[in-house]
Amino acid sequence: MTDTERIARAALSRLMEPQDAVGLALVRTAGAVDALRIATGQLATGPELEQAMTALLAENGTSSWPGMNASLRRWAPRIPDLAPERDLATMHRLGGRMIMPSDALWPRQLTDLDLHEPICLWWRGVEQPLPAASRSIALVGSRDSTSYGAAVTGDLAYSLAQRGFTIVSGGAYGIDAHAHRAALAGTGDTMPTIAVMAGGVDRFYPSGNEDLLRAVANQGAVLAEVPPGSAPTRYRFLQRNRLIAALSSVTVVVEARWRSGALNTAHHAENLGRAVGAVPGSVHSANSAGCHRLIREGGAVCVTDAGEIAELASPSGESLANLGPGQPADHDGLTLEDLILLDALPLRTTSSVEKLTSVAGLSADSVRAGLGRLGLLGLAESERGGWKRSRKAC
Amino acid sequence: MTDTERIARAALSRLMEPQDAVGLALVRTAGAVDALRIATGQLATGPELEQAMTALLAENGTSSWPGMNASLRRWAPRIPDLAPERDLATMHRLGGRMIMPSDALWPRQLTDLDLHEPICLWWRGVEQPLPAASRSIALVGSRDSTSYGAAVTGDLAYSLAQRGFTIVSGGAYGIDAHAHRAALAGTGDTMPTIAVMAGGVDRFYPSGNEDLLRAVANQGAVLAEVPPGSAPTRYRFLQRNRLIAALSSVTVVVEARWRSGALNTAHHAENLGRAVGAVPGSVHSANSAGCHRLIREGGAVCVTDAGEIAELASPSGESLANLGPGQPADHDGLTLEDLILLDALPLRTTSSVEKLTSVAGLSADSVRAGLGRLGLLGLAESERGGWKRSRKAC
Repeated sequence: MTDTERIARAALSRLMEPQDAVGLALVRTAGAVDALRIATGQLATGPELEQAMTALLAENGTSSWPGMNASLRRWAPRIPDLAPERDLATMHRLGGRMIMPSDALWPRQLTDLDLHEPICLWWRGVEQPLPAASRSIALVGSRDSTSYGAAVTGDLAYSLAQRGFTIVSGGAYGIDAHAHRAALAGTGDTMPTIAVMAGGVDRFYPSGNEDLLRAVANQGAVLAEVPPGSAPTRYRFLQRNRLIAALSSVTVVVEARWRSGALNTAHHAENLGRAVGAVPGSVHSANSAGCHRLIREGGAVCVTDAGEIAELASPSGESLANLGPGQPADHDGLTLEDLILLDALPLRTTSSVEKLTSVAGLSADSVRAGLGRLGLLGLAESERGGWKRSRKAC
Repeated sequence: MTDTERIARAALSRLMEPQDAVGLALVRTAGAVDALRIATGQLATGPELEQAMTALLAENGTSSWPGMNASLRRWAPRIPDLAPERDLATMHRLGGRMIMPSDALWPRQLTDLDLHEPICLWWRGVEQPLPAASRSIALVGSRDSTSYGAAVTGDLAYSLAQRGFTIVSGGAYGIDAHAHRAALAGTGDTMPTIAVMAGGVDRFYPSGNEDLLRAVANQGAVLAEVPPGSAPTRYRFLQRNRLIAALSSVTVVVEARWRSGALNTAHHAENLGRAVGAVPGSVHSANSAGCHRLIREGGAVCVTDAGEIAELASPSGESLANLGPGQPADHDGLTLEDLILLDALPLRTTSSVEKLTSVAGLSADSVRAGLGRLGLLGLAESERGGWKRSRKAC
């Protein structure tokens, strides 16, 4: 039974493009095995099934659909190419596997995609469960990254991996590659990194990242929802982005132009209720314009280091990121009168209480009391009957 | 009467530190002339007056105050130094003037400060009204600016001045100086720039900015609420910042460290309900950490150019800043099916409708209709019976 379902899902993932709403509704309603029989014309749908599909599609935002025939016509041209056993064998030969929602390895965080959960995943990598979304962070960005983007991505991925987070990205040139590479270098005990691909995982694409993706597969996972041999089309890149977002609790855009696929990933994350961060950069850099746009429009939180990103992953506040880099200044928390008095204290010579009342415009009582408080804080010191500011207060 | 009031306010501005709540409540309740007589011990307050002050202070967030005597003791030491006619004569000699709320030149936007409106302003510069807050933008930031901060400040101040905005800043080294300088260079018809000082305007301080501040006074205004001869203390810098914020509809922090006086100006602006912007920068630059902090904590909008700042000044949307730099891509707005079809079209050779049905996974009807739409958009073209992607779509 499971084998029949696995073969059916392998075939369906070739027949149907990612996020084919009618196809996914069919699989959900009829089950994968009957869905394949229906999609390939071996079984007819009844009015009851179509009614259930209509309801399911309406729940998921598709209020009217043209009926099964339009979809059957769409799927028909690919039927001759179906060879699911061959695809499964290919994955096996490459040391990989195909997993489906009933498998123990299925990442539970993908169920948040609801109807748009993939039919299956084609998976190369270590045979262990992916970390939970709360332990996974997506770092995404432009292919044509700058040296700034490369440096920031490297720092973030390395630090996050050292904190035990898994870095999810898309295996492309630029920011993606820097993210995977630094995560591999910075790993603790967990799976360091996951590459979610737009095309089939039988090839490590793009070829310039072949060695890198092989390393990702050796220590982590290289995944796709499309079967072996599928080309990474523009449409599939856009659909792939929803998987990157769904696998992670936080999606961080490190560098992106005003229009960039990385922004699409950020929007998917937002729609899923996941946290989105964006890294600021020079206003003169076109490669930061998309990040600034996201921040400006409220689509992302401004994040500048691994601590702030970790905080987004665990909003309960286990991280101390917002304490900031500096120690509190010693004169923080002084009353206005004491601040005025501190300003009035000379640095080199000393001043009398009488003189201070005039310079600070405070009564003698206030000056005396204030000098006592500033003295306790180590901000003022007395010297031969006069008062001066201590070195600490300068 | 006006002369008596002018002399009284001149004296009060020396007697009382900026934002002395009890002093301001006294002036508001008794009038400036009687307030000076009370503050200098020539007139007693009655219970009625103190009751009115108590109510006014409570309205403005001071729920309990120790009574007049504490304040009288605070003011007493400065009484011997009072010489308001001399101060007024000094300003006159320098080509300046002192203005007070009843003067036509008084900037109406300062009334938003309510009780914390200054007693008077000591003013050097052209004798014309300051522009309304809606036409004024504050650019503030660190004294130790980087070359990035200098360049961005220069660009912003110049572009904003060219759009007819007046640039308000604090006359200090660093970001302030770059803002004033570029505004002087970029002016249209309006007053290009205003410097609000923490110390007396008899001296152009700091001395390294003397020539710059003289130029600001020649074309714009150099203002302070403290009288001639007053030292720019730390306390006065903090109070001065509220005037910068109140004079402007938008306060933009260009560069600021994690702790910086510029953040104090931003907080004043926020409390006044004015817009606050912050310029992002490298996450490796300590001088941008304060800006990122503001953005991250929701205390400022991320702004990257003059258009976005102008938009904050006129939220009705006369600016087109949010249209972004690029033209919309030609494939924006395509349906998913047409996008899939576009992906399937070859770039160099041509493809038949039959071939496209298989590659794209679309019915022949959908392919034909889609090719028609893509052809109309100039994204696909037919050649000897086949179809290819047009150069425009690449």
